Amino acid sequence: MKRTSFADVSCPVARTLDLIGEWWTLLILRDVFYGVRRFDKLLSSLGISRNVLTDRLHTLVESGILEKQIYQQKPERYEYHLTESGRELLPVLVLLMNWGNRWLATDTKASVELVHEPCGQTVAPLLVCHHCNKQITTRNVRLHNLELV
Amino acid sequence: MKRTSFADVSCPVARTLDLIGEWWTLLILRDVFYGVRRFDKLLSSLGISRNVLTDRLHTLVESGILEKQIYQQKPERYEYHLTESGRELLPVLVLLMNWGNRWLATDTKASVELVHEPCGQTVAPLLVCHHCNKQITTRNVRLHNLELV
Repeated sequence: MKRTSFADVSCPVARTLDLIGEWWTLLILRDVFYGVRRFDKLLSSLGISRNVLTDRLHTLVESGILEKQIYQQKPERYEYHLTESGRELLPVLVLLMNWGNRWLATDTKASVELVHEPCGQTVAPLLVCHHCNKQITTRNVRLHNLELV
Repeated sequence: MKRTSFADVSCPVARTLDLIGEWWTLLILRDVFYGVRRFDKLLSSLGISRNVLTDRLHTLVESGILEKQIYQQKPERYEYHLTESGRELLPVLVLLMNWGNRWLATDTKASVELVHEPCGQTVAPLLVCHHCNKQITTRNVRLHNLELV
């Protein structure tokens, strides 16, 4: 990748990580992807403190990645669902899962993988460019600074 | 995505985040992708403390994501280069960049994007399955627990 200057540049990677780049936040999204949508279920699935979970869910709702849907009236109880922007983070989780399965040794526990239903095979994610269908690699992309509007 | 049980499952997403899911770690990788390879350059590019940078670089080298290459003998100075496993994290950064550009408002600064050299267009990343070339979405993948070996 070619070098560019970062002076006066607001990096979208940094902006994204500022919002979601916290361990628990991505694991909450993982669980919601998997169908764990309720506070108490998330609490036990993640082994996280009640305060931290409350705080992270609040941030995810505020930033429009999750939305609350009521499922019980008395007392009021909510489920957390992915919005469109939240669903668009799935590929990040797929890549992290694939990378972990490829490069990090598992401990004694079983691991998980994803099955791609159109072909029935274990997902083998490949990042391609929508314009030309060719793969995106470290060697064929370069940075471009957007001009100040 | 269909629900599965997580009892006795070691999630590769959690394992990966355990290693790289820390804000600074991904920003260090971003800079190395961009060609910022030396300690002092990383220090000024990231605005990070010397101790934190030393610690994160050590972790990345220990875990085989970066490797040190000497570029000056007296005093000894090293550059950090991506290994194969490090290069395979590029797609994660590409997706985070794309997501940030799509969903997070920029401030008054300019932003950056990637140009895909084979087609000359702004990278429009699409995650497809290597087996069937069809897109990977929240709606066409399901979890599969790997058996204990």
